[in-house]
Amino acid sequence: QETICIFGTGDYGRSLGFKMLQCGFSVVFGSRNPRMTSILPSGADVLSYSEAAQKSDIIIVAIHRDHYDFLTELIEVLDGKILVDISNNLKINQYPESNAEYLAQLVPGAHVVKAFNTISAWALQSGALDASRQVFVCGNDSEAKQRVMDIARTLGLTPLDQGSLMAAKEIENYPLQLFPMWRFPFYLSAALCVFFFVYCVIRDVIYPYVNEKKDNTFLMAVTIPNRIFPVTALILLALVYLPGVIAAILQLYRGTKYHRFPDWLDHWMLCRKQLGLVALGFACLHVLYTLVIPIRYYVRWRIRNATVKQAISKKEDPFSTSTAWLNDSYIALGILGFFLFVLLGITSLPSVSNKVNWREFRFVQSKLGYLTLILCTAHTLVYGGKKFLSPSVLKWYLPSAYILALIIPCTVLVIKFILIMPCIDRTLTRIRQGWE
Amino acid sequence: QETICIFGTGDYGRSLGFKMLQCGFSVVFGSRNPRMTSILPSGADVLSYSEAAQKSDIIIVAIHRDHYDFLTELIEVLDGKILVDISNNLKINQYPESNAEYLAQLVPGAHVVKAFNTISAWALQSGALDASRQVFVCGNDSEAKQRVMDIARTLGLTPLDQGSLMAAKEIENYPLQLFPMWRFPFYLSAALCVFFFVYCVIRDVIYPYVNEKKDNTFLMAVTIPNRIFPVTALILLALVYLPGVIAAILQLYRGTKYHRFPDWLDHWMLCRKQLGLVALGFACLHVLYTLVIPIRYYVRWRIRNATVKQAISKKEDPFSTSTAWLNDSYIALGILGFFLFVLLGITSLPSVSNKVNWREFRFVQSKLGYLTLILCTAHTLVYGGKKFLSPSVLKWYLPSAYILALIIPCTVLVIKFILIMPCIDRTLTRIRQGWE
Amino acid sequence: QETICIFGTGDYGRSLGFKMLQCGFSVVFGSRNPRMTSILPSGADVLSYSEAAQKSDIIIVAIHRDHYDFLTELIEVLDGKILVDISNNLKINQYPESNAEYLAQLVPGAHVVKAFNTISAWALQSGALDASRQVFVCGNDSEAKQRVMDIARTLGLTPLDQGSLMAAKEIENYPLQLFPMWRFPFYLSAALCVFFFVYCVIRDVIYPYVNEKKDNTFLMAVTIPNRIFPVTALILLALVYLPGVIAAILQLYRGTKYHRFPDWLDHWMLCRKQLGLVALGFACLHVLYTLVIPIRYYVRWRIRNATVKQAISKKEDPFSTSTAWLNDSYIALGILGFFLFVLLGITSLPSVSNKVNWREFRFVQSKLGYLTLILCTAHTLVYGGKKFLSPSVLKWYLPSAYILALIIPCTVLVIKFILIMPCIDRTLTRIRQGWE
Ligand SMILES: Cc1cc2nc3c(=O)[nH]c(=O)nc-3n(C[C@H](O)[C@H](O)[C@H](O)COP(=O)(O)OP(=O)(O)OC[C@H]3O[C@@H](n4cnc5c(N)ncnc54)[C@H](O)[C@@H]3O)c2cc1C
Ligand SMILES: Cc1cc2nc3c(=O)[nH]c(=O)nc-3n(C[C@H](O)[C@H](O)[C@H](O)COP(=O)(O)OP(=O)(O)OC[C@H]3O[C@@H](n4cnc5c(N)ncnc54)[C@H](O)[C@@H]3O)c2cc1C
Ligand SMILES: Cc1cc2nc3c(=O)[nH]c(=O)nc-3n(C[C@H](O)[C@H](O)[C@H](O)COP(=O)(O)OP(=O)(O)OC[C@H]3O[C@@H](n4cnc5c(N)ncnc54)[C@H](O)[C@@H]3O)c2cc1C
Ligand SMILES: NC(=O)c1ccc[n+]([C@@H]2O[C@H](COP(=O)([O-])OP(=O)(O)OC[C@H]3O[C@@H](n4cnc5c(N)ncnc54)[C@H](OP(=O)(O)O)[C@@H]3O)[C@@H](O)[C@H]2O)c1
Ligand SMILES: NC(=O)c1ccc[n+]([C@@H]2O[C@H](COP(=O)([O-])OP(=O)(O)OC[C@H]3O[C@@H](n4cnc5c(N)ncnc54)[C@H](OP(=O)(O)O)[C@@H]3O)[C@@H](O)[C@H]2O)c1
Ligand SMILES: NC(=O)c1ccc[n+]([C@@H]2O[C@H](COP(=O)([O-])OP(=O)(O)OC[C@H]3O[C@@H](n4cnc5c(N)ncnc54)[C@H](OP(=O)(O)O)[C@@H]3O)[C@@H](O)[C@H]2O)c1
Ligand SMILES: CCCCCCCCCCCCCCCC(=O)OC[C@H](COP(=O)(O)O)OC(=O)CCCCCCCCCCCCCCC
Ligand SMILES: CCCCCCCCCCCCCCCC(=O)OC[C@H](COP(=O)(O)O)OC(=O)CCCCCCCCCCCCCCC
Ligand SMILES: CCCCCCCCCCCCCCCC(=O)OC[C@H](COP(=O)(O)O)OC(=O)CCCCCCCCCCCCCCC
Ligand code: HEM
Ligand code: HEM
Ligand code: HEM
Repeated sequence: QETICIFGTGDYGRSLGFKMLQCGFSVVFGSRNPRMTSILPSGADVLSYSEAAQKSDIIIVAIHRDHYDFLTELIEVLDGKILVDISNNLKINQYPESNAEYLAQLVPGAHVVKAFNTISAWALQSGALDASRQVFVCGNDSEAKQRVMDIARTLGLTPLDQGSLMAAKEIENYPLQLFPMWRFPFYLSAALCVFFFVYCVIRDVIYPYVNEKKDNTFLMAVTIPNRIFPVTALILLALVYLPGVIAAILQLYRGTKYHRFPDWLDHWMLCRKQLGLVALGFACLHVLYTLVIPIRYYVRWRIRNATVKQAISKKEDPFSTSTAWLNDSYIALGILGFFLFVLLGITSLPSVSNKVNWREFRFVQSKLGYLTLILCTAHTLVYGGKKFLSPSVLKWYLPSAYILALIIPCTVLVIKFILIMPCIDRTLTRIRQGWE
Repeated sequence: QETICIFGTGDYGRSLGFKMLQCGFSVVFGSRNPRMTSILPSGADVLSYSEAAQKSDIIIVAIHRDHYDFLTELIEVLDGKILVDISNNLKINQYPESNAEYLAQLVPGAHVVKAFNTISAWALQSGALDASRQVFVCGNDSEAKQRVMDIARTLGLTPLDQGSLMAAKEIENYPLQLFPMWRFPFYLSAALCVFFFVYCVIRDVIYPYVNEKKDNTFLMAVTIPNRIFPVTALILLALVYLPGVIAAILQLYRGTKYHRFPDWLDHWMLCRKQLGLVALGFACLHVLYTLVIPIRYYVRWRIRNATVKQAISKKEDPFSTSTAWLNDSYIALGILGFFLFVLLGITSLPSVSNKVNWREFRFVQSKLGYLTLILCTAHTLVYGGKKFLSPSVLKWYLPSAYILALIIPCTVLVIKFILIMPCIDRTLTRIRQGWE
Repeated sequence: QETICIFGTGDYGRSLGFKMLQCGFSVVFGSRNPRMTSILPSGADVLSYSEAAQKSDIIIVAIHRDHYDFLTELIEVLDGKILVDISNNLKINQYPESNAEYLAQLVPGAHVVKAFNTISAWALQSGALDASRQVFVCGNDSEAKQRVMDIARTLGLTPLDQGSLMAAKEIENYPLQLFPMWRFPFYLSAALCVFFFVYCVIRDVIYPYVNEKKDNTFLMAVTIPNRIFPVTALILLALVYLPGVIAAILQLYRGTKYHRFPDWLDHWMLCRKQLGLVALGFACLHVLYTLVIPIRYYVRWRIRNATVKQAISKKEDPFSTSTAWLNDSYIALGILGFFLFVLLGITSLPSVSNKVNWREFRFVQSKLGYLTLILCTAHTLVYGGKKFLSPSVLKWYLPSAYILALIIPCTVLVIKFILIMPCIDRTLTRIRQGWE
């Protein structure tokens, strides 16, 4: 039975101590005023800091960084021991050096290991460890690191070696992040949504109100969202594949692949996955909004009235094969595009993408990805159909939203088409194989 | 080439031997009557138990626990060797001590390691190892454990260190379980379904039959399920967030978080994930049943008849903007709620939840979770709309099912709303930070 | 700081060197004409091959296999060192022996380790390591292997020990594969689709054209796919469960389970997962195509015309409870079947299947799988309903597509039903427990 010493009887110290006792370790607490209270997990000892430190050669420092200074008094006792820094900060990059490096400076003789900071006290205590099985570990002494990783494993956690103490800064920033890679796609799509919302409200609500005094506000609940969402999805999807063609043009122009891309392009390429998944989310919404069309009161009312009118006027409505073709085609294209879209999403699940090799992943993401883009663009083009650029759809000189939405996808597809022409493709391939 | 000894030429012994030979080990079987049959994997030797034991220092005991006694005769030969216990029982907690501990008592000189019991003989032989790559390993001698884990890894399995031999009981129970955490959500939802089925049959089938002699039984195929499922989903969703507010009230009342919650609350909190996923399943069913409405014969017939009647009477049906608003709103709320619901489901996939940090997981599960609950509740409230509590919808004094369904969600939301008011929230936060 | 030597300043050498420098290693390149160019990652040294080899005891050979011969000149320098072979071939099984074994023959004194070949140069350089975190490692010297695995881990990759150098061939083939297990299901389903497409075009397009001169070509966009897809899905689903019953019959007939199955059966059983998922894809398409029915122009036109006709003729259309029952039942059966189908799909996600034990996996895949098959078959049977085998649906003696589709599922279900009858089941269970 190994003995572990925990400095600090605060929330985190207690939770960790409780968990360790559960897993068969024996635990000694170090505290400023050592007294055994009911709050502390039963079975543990509480001693003064220096006494406690002597009981074990692994010491977990469950204290806020601001109060580390008193440790300088214990330098001798701590010499050669393993100090585990579990502290977090309140803001990203709050201090110039990481807490663990600061601790290593304070107690130079000790082997400092950073660990456990990603696990919350409450999760430890309640066992609700869903999000956070991963314990990032770093440290300069590899044996010390190994021992801490063994402890983590015994507690039922998944330690991940992150290298030397230089990685501590990143590890400390990790639990403070809130979806950093998703931020750009999120703001971009929000901006697109707002723009198209205003655009559609002008065309579909204000314009009829001004011209015909019709109250169309109710369109804002379903009809207008079902314009905004697909349009946003299509634009985002095209933006996933735009950086690739820009990169190709840049490489062709420079004649080498050994120049770094500009920063904005680099960042853009790294968040393509997130862009694509946000696009998928909007596409899902579009599909649900579309499937729901026939149960809407407004649609039922319109169809009923049209039928009644036709019945009263006893007119025959001739069947138009070409309309049937166009209508069925754009729906079929949409379905197939959406199907591949979801497939792309499924292969981005970490556990699935981990099981496919590089060639397969590129096949799905790049080949099927472009196919998705083609199908979705074709879906929108055929939906536009005959009325596509006829002036009658202009309201106050504003074209329909989907016409704006088509600009980027068509551009991407045209450039890509040029890039895969044999002569250009050959040059590009040679450049990408390292040729200069 | 390492030699492994396997005791017992039964089904499991053979399968394991076969796999081991395949992976480059050399295998010696121990048997009561050692004779080489065509059944045994070719390439292996068969000897008596004591002879076989001498050939290797790792011995896999592929024998049922009931027949372990003869091992006492081999105590000397087995001294210092690694004995791997792979046995399972037929029932959970069949014996007072685990099989591995029993084996360790029988042969005190050996290092007993529990392993491989979660892998089925057939899976080993056929290579169909989809569900069961994980081999839980435990034992008191860490070197012995390490060697067994190396063997498991060579066989293409994923060993997981579970600590000392005390964990053997749990490891032995594991393969006998059938979704233990899903049981409570499952029974609860079954009970809710049955209750609401009876309730709806009374209101929608028996009542019209008694009052108007109308045969509405066909409603039981789609219409009534499409009442039961969303109602169950909504109640289950609310029950996911109810324990959280109960816990908060308890903590406020007690003024400390260091008292254990009552057992029922603890268990309830631990199966919230499963409750939520079952709720998601019912919500998915509701959505499918809803989207299918316009292709139902009954609905088409109703609409056609209404249209025909209107055409014959030549009445105009005026368009009601407020109905359109209400109708479109509740549909839009449903779609958005469902979208977030699926998002919650996706983040519970182990591979996704493993990639997000604690802050992100809580953001999704707690913040977006409450948003989901709000949207779904609003969806139902707006669906009720004007007819909400009007007496005309009462049949035999029974209100509509969705009114019953709204009780718990509304309660949860109201209490939560009170709990996040600044004054109470501050106290609660302090309590949760360990303050007393 | 460890020094790593890389032979070859080509694309892969540079990318790996760049990554290693980033992760804190010091790097020495070996080259035919050592000169420092801007192309090479800054911070690395470039020496001649033999000089470079002396700087480190780990040498990564980033050279194509064709040019390995010059290494024979360096035999002495390389003696006792770790040579990491990272090469790939252009075709599967291009050479009789694997590249790594060839290297080991060339430099017998070195410890050859195969690794890194699954990681692409571009992924290394750009950090886009989504598909390819896994590094398969094999080698005869376990210490050498361990050191290479440590390096891989430091680079942020996931090393997987694959055993001795004999595994190199498989590792070298791995990155050249493109979904090998999906090939059979894919071709099979393509063949089924083509067959049923032709079949339906004959029945639904050519037949009416010949007999009534009706232009039904537009049916090819939605209506006919919505026949082909569900029919293919149902047949594939049945083919998932057919090998199981064939295997059972074979085992019963032979009276033992210790004879190997014929090769075709073995292969078939191993790609049931893929067959099932392809079936799921087709089922998803069927559902989307079905839900979209009421928004099709053709369907709306047909319904409107029927309504108008009825209104003009002032006929009442009586409500048929039995039609409502049949219609609602087959829809409900379809929804429930589809729900379980998706559930089967979710449990095949690697991260989910890894969390369930063998008993649970078999419960879902086998029990719920058969339930899915039953529900889907019942859905189709009830859909056929009264018109099932009436001669009026024959066109040119061809029955409806779904009647053909029902043959295999019904056969599988009938045989399975026979197999689970107590007397047969008992015999089978005994055979499977190893009894002869
Ligand atoms: C739903 C959805 C999910 C997605 N999920 C993911 C995901 O999980 N992971 C992910 O990464 N992306 C994901 N994406 C984004 C996208 O599908 C991929 O990034 C895809 O690989 C981009 O294809 P591409 O052909 O444009 O880019 P690439 O194939 O990456 O090529 C684009 C550029 O990369 C450079 N390049 C490519 N190969 C080389 C080479 N050998 N040498 C030098 N330079 C090279 C070139 O500059 C080229 O122009 C997703 C998209 C969607 C819609
Ligand atoms: C589709 C779906 C999927 C789901 N998947 C999952 C899943 O994968 N994993 C999962 O766990 N849940 C899952 N859930 C359930 C649920 O979303 C989560 O449990 C969620 O975190 C509950 O939020 P909450 O705010 O009520 O609870 P919490 O945020 O857990 O808070 C509730 C109570 O916990 C206690 N508590 C919280 N924080 C602290 C603290 N710091 N110190 C002391 N006590 C504290 C308090 O008593 C508090 O009242 C899922 C739900 C749904 C609908
Ligand atoms: C959407 C979908 C997803 C799927 N995903 C997966 C997946 O992820 N992984 C997967 O493997 N399959 C998957 N499948 C395929 C299928 O569901 C499973 O293979 C399922 O287990 C087959 O059930 P079964 O009862 O026919 O076969 P089994 O239960 O495997 O039994 C079939 C035959 O196996 C042999 N057998 C079974 N048990 C024993 C034993 N103890 N001793 C000797 N012989 C035995 C017998 O010959 C028996 O006849 C999927 C299918 C679908 C539709
Ligand atoms: N809570 C979490 O969920 C969580 C998660 C990850 C990491 N962490 C990290 O764990 C550390 C401790 O967090 P916590 O939540 O346990 O904090 P806390 O409850 O405030 O406890 C801090 C403890 O530090 C000790 N201490 C020593 N010198 C001190 C001084 N001068 N002033 C105040 N306290 C002093 C005290 O113990 P004695 O009274 O016994 O001396 C006190 O109980 C922090 O670094 C935090 O970043 C916490
Ligand atoms: N089958 C599985 O899928 C599976 C999965 C996990 C764990 N297990 C475990 O593996 C063990 C063996 O299972 P099994 O399926 O292989 O059982 P089995 O087929 O009945 O084999 C048991 C073997 O034990 C030997 N044995 C020794 N003394 C015995 C005695 N007095 N009476 C009967 N047999 C005796 C026999 O081998 P000799 O005739 O050569 O002496 C016999 O073949 C069990 O503990 C089981 O829980 C099995
Ligand atoms: N590129 C990838 O994505 C990737 C992925 C996995 C594996 N690999 C493997 O990595 C190895 C190298 O690939 P690479 O893409 O880097 O190829 P490369 O760009 O053609 O580089 C090959 C290097 O080998 C050296 N070399 C030594 N003797 C040679 C000779 N007689 N003729 C030509 N070159 C000679 C050259 O370096 P010096 O001029 O400095 O002597 C040359 O730069 C291959 O085995 C490949 O299968 C590549
Ligand atoms: C319109 C909706 C479209 C839905 C698309 C469903 C697609 C189903 C086909 C699965 C394709 C698997 C990807 C193949 C990549 C691969 O090779 O992946 C390879 C890996 C590993 O394969 P090996 O085990 O063979 O190594 O395979 C998998 O991990 C398979 C994962 C399957 C996941 C299925 C998830 C189902 C969820 C369905 C939700 C659908 C909701 C629909 C509502 C209408
Ligand atoms: C109404 C249906 C709604 C469907 C919702 C689709 C949502 C798609 C958006 C994906 C959101 C990803 C979660 C983000 C959490 C996170 O940050 O997760 C973080 C992780 C890791 O991210 P890093 O790689 O950046 O570290 O990201 C992921 O793992 C992404 C997983 C994506 C999974 C997509 C699954 C698609 C399946 C779709 C089925 C839909 C069927 C619809 C039928 C109609
Ligand atoms: C018709 C569409 C039907 C959709 C079905 C949705 C099912 C939701 C219920 C989830 C069932 C979980 C499987 C249980 C296996 C298990 O025990 O699995 C056990 C594991 C591990 O459990 P523990 O954490 O308890 O050990 O649980 C999981 O991993 C849960 C994974 C949940 C995955 C949810 C994925 C949601 C994606 C939804 C897409 C739907 C799109 C719909 C569009 C219309
Ligand atoms: C199941 C799949 C799909 C179906 C059934 C479908 C159906 C439809 C329908 C019926 C419309 C007309 C909406 C209206 O009349 O207001 C439409 C419009 C549109 N769809 Fe889809 N669609 C699908 C998938 C997609 C996908 C994946 C995309 C691209 C990301 C997409 C992009 C668009 C766009 C841009 C429009 C025009 C929106 C407008 O301005 O009105 N669709 N779709
Ligand atoms: C795509 C998303 C959704 C759509 C389109 C939708 C649509 C509908 C419709 C049309 C009804 C009326 C049904 C009827 O007339 O019988 C309804 C009822 C209802 N919905 Fe939804 N819904 C969705 C999601 C949800 C979700 C996620 C929940 C909550 C978990 C929910 C809960 C309910 C409830 C409780 C009712 C009342 C059932 C009754 O008693 O009749 N819905 N929904
Ligand atoms: C949400 C679930 C489902 C719904 C709502 C549904 C609905 C329908 C409908 C409305 C039809 C008639 C199509 C037509 O009139 O052309 C149909 C046909 C059919 N369905 Fe489904 N279905 C579902 C799921 C499934 C599944 C999972 C399968 C099996 C894999 C399946 C197999 C079939 C087959 C074989 C046909 C006959 C196709 C033909 O020859 O016309 N269905 N389904």
